[in-house]
Amino acid sequence: MKTGLAHLYIPGPTNVPEVVRRAMNVPMQDHRASDFDQLTGSIFEDLKAVYGTTKGRVALFPGSGTGCWEAAITNTLNPGDKVLMARHGHFSHLWVEMAKKLDLDVQVVDVAWGAGVPVNEFARILGADRHGDIKAVFVTHNETATGVTSDVAAVRAVLDGALHDALLFVDGVSSIGSIPFRMDDWGVDLAVTGSQKGLMSPAGMGMLAISEKALRAAQTSKMRRAFFDLADMLKQHDLGSFPYTPPVPLLHGLKAALNRMMDEGLPNIHARHKRLANGVRRAVAAWGLDLCAEHPTLYSDTVTAIRTPEGVDARDVIRIAYDRYNCSLGSGLGPLSGKAFRIGHLGDLNEGMCLTAIALAEMALVEAGARIKLGSGVAAAQEAYVMRPAEAKLRLAAE
Amino acid sequence: MKTGLAHLYIPGPTNVPEVVRRAMNVPMQDHRASDFDQLTGSIFEDLKAVYGTTKGRVALFPGSGTGCWEAAITNTLNPGDKVLMARHGHFSHLWVEMAKKLDLDVQVVDVAWGAGVPVNEFARILGADRHGDIKAVFVTHNETATGVTSDVAAVRAVLDGALHDALLFVDGVSSIGSIPFRMDDWGVDLAVTGSQKGLMSPAGMGMLAISEKALRAAQTSKMRRAFFDLADMLKQHDLGSFPYTPPVPLLHGLKAALNRMMDEGLPNIHARHKRLANGVRRAVAAWGLDLCAEHPTLYSDTVTAIRTPEGVDARDVIRIAYDRYNCSLGSGLGPLSGKAFRIGHLGDLNEGMCLTAIALAEMALVEAGARIKLGSGVAAAQEAYVMRPAEAKLRLAAE
Amino acid sequence: MKTGLAHLYIPGPTNVPEVVRRAMNVPMQDHRASDFDQLTGSIFEDLKAVYGTTKGRVALFPGSGTGCWEAAITNTLNPGDKVLMARHGHFSHLWVEMAKKLDLDVQVVDVAWGAGVPVNEFARILGADRHGDIKAVFVTHNETATGVTSDVAAVRAVLDGALHDALLFVDGVSSIGSIPFRMDDWGVDLAVTGSQKGLMSPAGMGMLAISEKALRAAQTSKMRRAFFDLADMLKQHDLGSFPYTPPVPLLHGLKAALNRMMDEGLPNIHARHKRLANGVRRAVAAWGLDLCAEHPTLYSDTVTAIRTPEGVDARDVIRIAYDRYNCSLGSGLGPLSGKAFRIGHLGDLNEGMCLTAIALAEMALVEAGARIKLGSGVAAAQEAYVMRPAEAKLRLAAE
Amino acid sequence: MKTGLAHLYIPGPTNVPEVVRRAMNVPMQDHRASDFDQLTGSIFEDLKAVYGTTKGRVALFPGSGTGCWEAAITNTLNPGDKVLMARHGHFSHLWVEMAKKLDLDVQVVDVAWGAGVPVNEFARILGADRHGDIKAVFVTHNETATGVTSDVAAVRAVLDGALHDALLFVDGVSSIGSIPFRMDDWGVDLAVTGSQKGLMSPAGMGMLAISEKALRAAQTSKMRRAFFDLADMLKQHDLGSFPYTPPVPLLHGLKAALNRMMDEGLPNIHARHKRLANGVRRAVAAWGLDLCAEHPTLYSDTVTAIRTPEGVDARDVIRIAYDRYNCSLGSGLGPLSGKAFRIGHLGDLNEGMCLTAIALAEMALVEAGARIKLGSGVAAAQEAYVMRPAEAKLRLAAE
Repeated sequence: MKTGLAHLYIPGPTNVPEVVRRAMNVPMQDHRASDFDQLTGSIFEDLKAVYGTTKGRVALFPGSGTGCWEAAITNTLNPGDKVLMARHGHFSHLWVEMAKKLDLDVQVVDVAWGAGVPVNEFARILGADRHGDIKAVFVTHNETATGVTSDVAAVRAVLDGALHDALLFVDGVSSIGSIPFRMDDWGVDLAVTGSQKGLMSPAGMGMLAISEKALRAAQTSKMRRAFFDLADMLKQHDLGSFPYTPPVPLLHGLKAALNRMMDEGLPNIHARHKRLANGVRRAVAAWGLDLCAEHPTLYSDTVTAIRTPEGVDARDVIRIAYDRYNCSLGSGLGPLSGKAFRIGHLGDLNEGMCLTAIALAEMALVEAGARIKLGSGVAAAQEAYVMRPAEAKLRLAAE
Repeated sequence: MKTGLAHLYIPGPTNVPEVVRRAMNVPMQDHRASDFDQLTGSIFEDLKAVYGTTKGRVALFPGSGTGCWEAAITNTLNPGDKVLMARHGHFSHLWVEMAKKLDLDVQVVDVAWGAGVPVNEFARILGADRHGDIKAVFVTHNETATGVTSDVAAVRAVLDGALHDALLFVDGVSSIGSIPFRMDDWGVDLAVTGSQKGLMSPAGMGMLAISEKALRAAQTSKMRRAFFDLADMLKQHDLGSFPYTPPVPLLHGLKAALNRMMDEGLPNIHARHKRLANGVRRAVAAWGLDLCAEHPTLYSDTVTAIRTPEGVDARDVIRIAYDRYNCSLGSGLGPLSGKAFRIGHLGDLNEGMCLTAIALAEMALVEAGARIKLGSGVAAAQEAYVMRPAEAKLRLAAE
Repeated sequence: MKTGLAHLYIPGPTNVPEVVRRAMNVPMQDHRASDFDQLTGSIFEDLKAVYGTTKGRVALFPGSGTGCWEAAITNTLNPGDKVLMARHGHFSHLWVEMAKKLDLDVQVVDVAWGAGVPVNEFARILGADRHGDIKAVFVTHNETATGVTSDVAAVRAVLDGALHDALLFVDGVSSIGSIPFRMDDWGVDLAVTGSQKGLMSPAGMGMLAISEKALRAAQTSKMRRAFFDLADMLKQHDLGSFPYTPPVPLLHGLKAALNRMMDEGLPNIHARHKRLANGVRRAVAAWGLDLCAEHPTLYSDTVTAIRTPEGVDARDVIRIAYDRYNCSLGSGLGPLSGKAFRIGHLGDLNEGMCLTAIALAEMALVEAGARIKLGSGVAAAQEAYVMRPAEAKLRLAAE
Repeated sequence: MKTGLAHLYIPGPTNVPEVVRRAMNVPMQDHRASDFDQLTGSIFEDLKAVYGTTKGRVALFPGSGTGCWEAAITNTLNPGDKVLMARHGHFSHLWVEMAKKLDLDVQVVDVAWGAGVPVNEFARILGADRHGDIKAVFVTHNETATGVTSDVAAVRAVLDGALHDALLFVDGVSSIGSIPFRMDDWGVDLAVTGSQKGLMSPAGMGMLAISEKALRAAQTSKMRRAFFDLADMLKQHDLGSFPYTPPVPLLHGLKAALNRMMDEGLPNIHARHKRLANGVRRAVAAWGLDLCAEHPTLYSDTVTAIRTPEGVDARDVIRIAYDRYNCSLGSGLGPLSGKAFRIGHLGDLNEGMCLTAIALAEMALVEAGARIKLGSGVAAAQEAYVMRPAEAKLRLAAE
């Protein structure tokens, strides 16, 4: 029988803050009530801040981030439209598959799982697209499967350099809210995220941010859509409502989560993610293991994907952590199955939580046969987190 | 400032039982964990019982019942397919609109808002459809806007009588779980419902039941779909999971709600709804007001739509009930706006709750200008609910 | 199987507001933490406002109001002290019993259960007590068993008139927070209440307010006490803490309840209780039944005790309400058992709740054999609550 | 701003299991309802199992363990009774103070804070007490302040050896439910515990177990008592109820906690505490620090009290852990203030939680100036917890 806290260190759903959990403990209510916009109003405003947009709009779709991938496509493109996508991990792969299902003409650039978006190759392709056949470029900002963060601004620069008019789609499911995202600055046209990662809430809502340019494109899109119809949604959002019954407890939770995020401040949240992620990576280095991410410039501050050593099945690591230590780690997906496991370190997190994840991962690694010195990863992370006594004393004195 | 209980008598979301609310008070968990099917397993089985099917399958789509309308269409039909639908209230109207958006060739039979599905007209049309051009017939089992329950079995008889092979789609959003639904017996092919009505849970999940015939149709459907792809969903359901992150707290709630429903027993639930609804209708009769439903055979046991008297704006009734008495009543939709209000009486309900709704509705009616005797509706409902003292004594003795 | 809302209309515990329930949904925390006073601080201040004291202090004892009865006695009196008490209901009876157990020399004035504190008799006794042998006078402000509110100010006037120095003890368990209480103005020295009535929280905490005079008396009291030692408690309260581990979730709940009460405003709360209680009494009058309270000047605005007609066993009424209608009514206590039942109407309440209680009580009465016209009580209460249409229209326009 | 989980490693209140937390999320209910014993019934039975008694009875007092100390004394002893107590830590000190307040004639044996109950000295004193003047012997089973578990069976043996008839009182607040307790076997007469430690619930209830011999003593005790009157309480417990309003949510929680404990099994719970505590002690050894407990036979499996090195103020360690790492550690009490801190490791706990506490304590120690190798304590605990890969493989295969 499992006892004690369930240690949850997957890259989503993440640990929901108490204040969010508390907020969701509600009886039902009428989403058509005259004062329902008191619940929803601040959500839209705060989400715009999280996205880094003042000019765009945000729509909330019940469902998930996957649903918003679909909403982004079906509201702005047309069947047969040519789009440019990279495939470098499980989630970019799934997005490619969806684009094909939705009858887009997908030009896929395959790169290694562990690489980032191939900016140079994108530059070459877009530069060669003299007639603007490519209607959209898709970027997976943070490939959750490999722990790789790609450079959205660089893709924007490539588009601008090629004077190319394609829409820029970004999957920010495991990045937005946790690491910097600047929709307006980067000229992102459609940005997708979900409630259950950086937004610190349960799954059940997807968010889609839409630029003014994308809103214009939406007026001419003829793709079939109903549930994910953006015009219907925005029309109701203008009234603080939804075209169909929304998951009210989740809205209460999301509102509380956004309040908590605004209290911490986005720059502080981003700095915290960087600091905590750094500790996790130090631990991996101390173990002598490799990351999936190919280069430090690609390291994700929200999830770390770790290759297990030769002869150690990553599935055993995950299974031991779960069965014996009540700890959920992320699995290796697709070709990485058995070869990698992942530690999610995003959302409402602190040092103790990262140290817990590291301590349990190293126990599971050792039990699965890895030759790792127990405590080595924890010590390395602690070194990254600890404050010198002199500094600590000053702080104590100042408080 | 509003004080005390918020009295919720809209036809959904309905009042969530405490046992469901409690079950949703959970930390997050990994939906990819090896034991996740312990959460989901009984849900699928219990839902089949609620639908009255042993041969069909049930899929759970994060989102809402509206999403399942779309899933039903996009997984089994093809663009341009001719379908037969009736429009006799706001929700059948919305379903027609969706079918058009999804490029179906909709033959709409318009009848009065307050009438049921026009079975004879359907018989005529289907009988005339010699070449089987009509691929599907859509029935709104319970038109939530008018409080009208239609006869699904009669539509099945018409199809059978015409030896017509069309698929039978049923919207059971405000009926399934509350009043009898016999998917297998009635030969329903696609039946849609949502979590927030008879299933006593918050909104956020839609349920789609699919007959074997519909599953076969799904194999040849070429309509574009992604989020609502049935094959992907069923494949994951076979493993107790979902193709994307599901709303875990809602699953816990739904499981608890189904357990509670199985404890009460479906026949008892149906009998309770009939008994409680009868009391509400007696109250309306005592007020001297008309129902939207045209005939007693159409009366819905889950929602009653009530026409306000000449000169009384139904929106005032609703507003007074909400602002002064912390009571949510359903509004008149579309052409019924201002002319009708609705009392939802479904889900986890008892006599006291119905009496509360009636008592507050009559206060709001009087304050909005209706000439109604205070207490008259309550007394009529009490008469419907009360037990004779002799019988009550026997019961007390027997306990 | 019981379904739907459990209708709770006993005079405590009362219906806990959602905001309180939500606040209690917390993980545990260290009550010795440096910032624990952030939780407790406002509680003490707000309680003083509820008590109507600026000069006195308030202590929170884990346990219940009963515990605070004991704390009041053991911290300020001495074994063998003569005290003056009235017995006119179950709770004043229990307090007398406790005083005897604690070795006080109790002079009991017995009056009818249904009468108030016998002010004139008290005046006579106190006037005759030339040597000040009586050390304390005990008043049950609101006798919960009979629905009788006594006149504390009149007892103060009697003490002052007799130039008598006795301490004035008041049991305000079912009054404080719901009806006016003016500790300083009335010269109350020790006032007891509990968390589960007007303070809208679960049971588990008792509150004791102590005047400056009582604090002085506490310095010379030699009665044995430990758990309920006031000096220990106040010393810790000064630090925002407790001498032993307090029930932390209840503190969160109490804080939220007090915030909600301050938002509504004490005068508004008192007016609401008066208005709602009036409706309940109108219902009883319409039924043709008698109250236990002997005279309108004694009517309690927090609880109404109703005598059942000849031949109707009040226990049957209560049992039917509970078993058949999921409704908890208060029972007749002691000599009133079988002869009376009680409706609690205090705390976080509104019109719909009172109408529910009345509607279900009249069903239970009829089923138990009472000759009562169904709906009559509800109609009478509605008449008390309803607004004239013209006025309602003005209100709607003004909003 | 603090983020992430609050890490709670004080020796109570302990981390409440989710299943308990969920169970407490309830609306209020009538504790006088006919079916209230359905809630309370199993609680009394399960508590007897936890206490290791089949012959004794258990009473639940709203309040805390401290209240049950008082209940134990005031229900079985008489003013002026001579009792034998040891003082070897803050909580045994507080119990001595209470006994004095309650007018007992306390013979205190002072031993070092860090020593256990002085069994030999007790033997000498009891042997010398020819006339049986000593009416009771008090043992603090687990001195929470020093992390010392004393040998209750040895005290029983001493009493038996001296043919002494004194009652045996045991404070088991931080032991019962976590480490073996055998009330019947050890001849314990009065055993006190609280809801917030091994019983995995919030504070707010104390439990008192009473032997048959103590029940007989209770019949002749003449000490004043009211709230803590045992006869009143047991009489109501026989009906499944309480003499005053109990904290209903806590009862729901306690019931769920006991169910969870019975599911795990008491021997498994005890083994788990031993195993986890061993890891914590290994960590302390790796740090090179001393325990307060003087000898390994005294080591408590529920709490470890650790002396900080010369020059390191334990208050700084605690403050850094709390302010910087959102981690609550126990403080040094009384003479140990500033010289020791404590890690609570009891209740619903697992390896990951202990490793978290150790990792954060070592960070706080280093920042407070201790010369400790980061990771050293974690590594030592991991060594204690880890399974050899070969064994792990066998386990995985067997699952």
